[in-house]
Amino acid sequence: MKNRSAIEIYDTTLRDGTQGEKITLSVQDKLLIAEKLDDFGVDYIEGGWPSSNPKDEEFFRRALDLQLKNAKLCAFGSTARKPDAIEKDPNLTGLLNSETPVITIFGKTWKAHSSLGLGLEDEENAELIFRSVEYLKSKGRTVIFDAEHFFDGYKDNPAFALKMLLAAEQAGAARLVLCDTNGGSMPKEVYDIVREILDKTVVPIGIHSHNDGDLAVANSLAALRAGASHVQGTINGIGERCGNANLISIIPNVILKLNGRFHHKLNLKQLTSLSNSVYELLNFPPDNRAPFVGKSAFAHKGGIHVSAVLKESSLYEHIDPKTVGNRQRVLVSELAGQSNIRYKAKELGIELPDNGDLFKKIVQSVKKLEHQGFQFDVAEASFELLLRHELGQFRPFFEVLESKVHIESGKNREPLDQAILKIEVNNEIEMTAADGDGPVNALDKALRKVLRGFYPAIRTIKLVDYKVRVLEEKKGTSAKVRVLIETSDGHSTWSTVGVSTNIIDASLQALSDSMNYYLFNTEKVTPAPLHAETE
Amino acid sequence: MKNRSAIEIYDTTLRDGTQGEKITLSVQDKLLIAEKLDDFGVDYIEGGWPSSNPKDEEFFRRALDLQLKNAKLCAFGSTARKPDAIEKDPNLTGLLNSETPVITIFGKTWKAHSSLGLGLEDEENAELIFRSVEYLKSKGRTVIFDAEHFFDGYKDNPAFALKMLLAAEQAGAARLVLCDTNGGSMPKEVYDIVREILDKTVVPIGIHSHNDGDLAVANSLAALRAGASHVQGTINGIGERCGNANLISIIPNVILKLNGRFHHKLNLKQLTSLSNSVYELLNFPPDNRAPFVGKSAFAHKGGIHVSAVLKESSLYEHIDPKTVGNRQRVLVSELAGQSNIRYKAKELGIELPDNGDLFKKIVQSVKKLEHQGFQFDVAEASFELLLRHELGQFRPFFEVLESKVHIESGKNREPLDQAILKIEVNNEIEMTAADGDGPVNALDKALRKVLRGFYPAIRTIKLVDYKVRVLEEKKGTSAKVRVLIETSDGHSTWSTVGVSTNIIDASLQALSDSMNYYLFNTEKVTPAPLHAETE
Repeated sequence: MKNRSAIEIYDTTLRDGTQGEKITLSVQDKLLIAEKLDDFGVDYIEGGWPSSNPKDEEFFRRALDLQLKNAKLCAFGSTARKPDAIEKDPNLTGLLNSETPVITIFGKTWKAHSSLGLGLEDEENAELIFRSVEYLKSKGRTVIFDAEHFFDGYKDNPAFALKMLLAAEQAGAARLVLCDTNGGSMPKEVYDIVREILDKTVVPIGIHSHNDGDLAVANSLAALRAGASHVQGTINGIGERCGNANLISIIPNVILKLNGRFHHKLNLKQLTSLSNSVYELLNFPPDNRAPFVGKSAFAHKGGIHVSAVLKESSLYEHIDPKTVGNRQRVLVSELAGQSNIRYKAKELGIELPDNGDLFKKIVQSVKKLEHQGFQFDVAEASFELLLRHELGQFRPFFEVLESKVHIESGKNREPLDQAILKIEVNNEIEMTAADGDGPVNALDKALRKVLRGFYPAIRTIKLVDYKVRVLEEKKGTSAKVRVLIETSDGHSTWSTVGVSTNIIDASLQALSDSMNYYLFNTEKVTPAPLHAETE
Repeated sequence: MKNRSAIEIYDTTLRDGTQGEKITLSVQDKLLIAEKLDDFGVDYIEGGWPSSNPKDEEFFRRALDLQLKNAKLCAFGSTARKPDAIEKDPNLTGLLNSETPVITIFGKTWKAHSSLGLGLEDEENAELIFRSVEYLKSKGRTVIFDAEHFFDGYKDNPAFALKMLLAAEQAGAARLVLCDTNGGSMPKEVYDIVREILDKTVVPIGIHSHNDGDLAVANSLAALRAGASHVQGTINGIGERCGNANLISIIPNVILKLNGRFHHKLNLKQLTSLSNSVYELLNFPPDNRAPFVGKSAFAHKGGIHVSAVLKESSLYEHIDPKTVGNRQRVLVSELAGQSNIRYKAKELGIELPDNGDLFKKIVQSVKKLEHQGFQFDVAEASFELLLRHELGQFRPFFEVLESKVHIESGKNREPLDQAILKIEVNNEIEMTAADGDGPVNALDKALRKVLRGFYPAIRTIKLVDYKVRVLEEKKGTSAKVRVLIETSDGHSTWSTVGVSTNIIDASLQALSDSMNYYLFNTEKVTPAPLHAETE
């Protein structure tokens, strides 16, 4: 890399990130994220656009109390609207009122935007940029200039784009950030243009890219390779349209692949937890497929891959997952061989016999069930019960002997959903019934009602997710369905699976597994054999 | 671009794609996807690894009946295990038995994999590659050679990697595909290495990349820019770990940004629907943020962006969304909803009134239903019925007055699934009952039984897909479910939706819509008002 200096990280999760669809962060969320970013070693945290909404103003007010170790807070906004009213410009005033040590302002560097969008002459636009930067600097702030649409503008009219950039530099901007605002540039263009700009400017050059061409990370890396030394992006790539450049991917690529050096020493091992905690605050499910930090990023499914990885991880892993705080996983699936089952068992702390008859029997059971439609890679609790059952370590705590579900609905009446269950627990046979909100809910309630009498702890668990997938769609409504259930006791969650042509049956299987799994792990005793098993 | 010739698209959604976590496709799904890929203009469709699992074998058996216009089917597998038993090698035999015109085999080109993983001398590995390719070619097949781990292998030991590649070329391989199997290469490396290989080989060079560094699209484009003329990837980038290179991003970048030329003429306008239909078959929610095709890809939220975009779209859009079958959206605004409905109605050929009360009523109906969980973008038939109903053009052909479902199962007996329906058709009220394979099947059968007597054409339609998604997962088993049904009359297919806390009710809504839609389009008459509507 040819950088003028160590690379600075400028995070805009709290500003550009929140422009993404369905993304909302409370002020409290934003403060928490700012602290995490600072801990991680980010150089700049762009907190918001103070004059655009009251929430951002409140953020800056409360952010004054943050004790930041590494990062400087930045407020974001546009240049002034009119060159002759700089000191009264509401946007610049808002920026100054935010009391951040750094202010980032954007200006137009694509002629069409300046003339068509704002109706300005070239000279007027240059003056707006110059005087806005100069004014903020005169108030003792560090000013970063975001050159909006720089790449499109430079391709369209290089003289205009450069003139605007130099206006900011001459006025004292500390950084010139080239923005690919529409996100459609190609890495080669970005590389070439950054090289050209480096020859014509003195202050550090930054890159701000968007992912509309699926190339935001590549464009950021191309700019850094060309010599840019300041990179802007968001955690998990959140942001308007297709998102901003994803810092979670850029950072490890710079360190591990390009031998680049960041300004602060970063603890890469925190990368996965940083990514997850931002998803958590956004109330978004994490992206399992996310490079470096996703749950699947080092998950192996194909049999050949798995046996190779067990010999030597680097054969199918581009980096050691621990470097970024992630871990290797092996999935159990129809594509998997015996080695996947062994690996998984090891992960679960279950000792399997060597390649004797019992092991073969286990492999056959798993394959047979998978052929029927069971999917164990997403239902680890069911898989654990299956293994322990085959090994004689687990016996079901109860058995559903009979189930009846009765559903009625009609034009002018309340719908009715009733479940009737006959269950064997501890050698006693109990019959029970429950109404519910839908048939599966009725079954769940009836099952809990019986079990509660024997195992009061069952009260503490609840279903948190419930998914149905129809297998073999060609058969239409008589197709098999697979039900996946996720249950939580408030501390941990576990997943179970059921398969049947009948959705009620499949649900009952997954519900039973879920409750058995919980009881197995809390009761610490294996129940006496059920009547049914002694037959 | 410096390509030797027009670029070929090699899709491996059905093989490498299914290695992704939680990804399972039935044989029927795979056949449907193959047809969609062929329609779109893909050159090669890799259908599976025949000797790895019985499902892939079944796929190739049934794929013989596909009438492909553009694409050639490929079977995938490894080179032989032992050079002296080529003709008996089970893997090569499996590949030949698949009867595809093209066979793709992979061989080791990273010395560590060959020596450490397989325990082979260099010469032995080269011979395995040579003899495997030669043998398959002697059987009349076109052979594509996938050079596994090529980039890592070449960086580690260029002589070894090149020797293996040339063995494949000398044996008659039609394409040499350089694979970034671990997905950790950088675009610059890929570009440089492809340039070097092009100087040393004659046949077309391909690229196969993975997304572990978040650079699979960039790496594919770098290889194509360097002169590769064959690109492998998957729809939506599904695949092992972080996924394969995403063809949905590569294709428009090549055409719209790099002025590249594909072998077949592609209808880019189908891109968004191709992406969505694969998500739908996977029963995965689409990625709203996906470049080019995502629902948010051209969605504008910031006030400045919105007003600029309304003046001139290109100000904040890198391409015209229509080019890829997507559309502009403006978020958080009454306008957005109305223009979407207008847009959709126009697409369906339905004329809507201007902004009168009726139009407002339609907008409100749609919004209310969407708020309840209906999703009309994937259930156009239900949407059309809704619009036509509001416009007074459609009245239901029947109405379900009452439904009862009775399900029983138990340890030692056959499961029982019965549905009882009371239905009003043509002012007659009929009651009927049916047994079925699962409750939804029983409902479907009962409904058809009644309708057949009035509309014999109903016999010709059948359900081809049935999907259930639980909304508001946090509520556990009492959550609302959305049922999506796809029905076919052998010529075309249509999708309908139902939402309820009760899966049976939701299914009945979607089934009713499906049959109404078919009757509306075949009977060409609107039925007399139902009794219920005259109340």
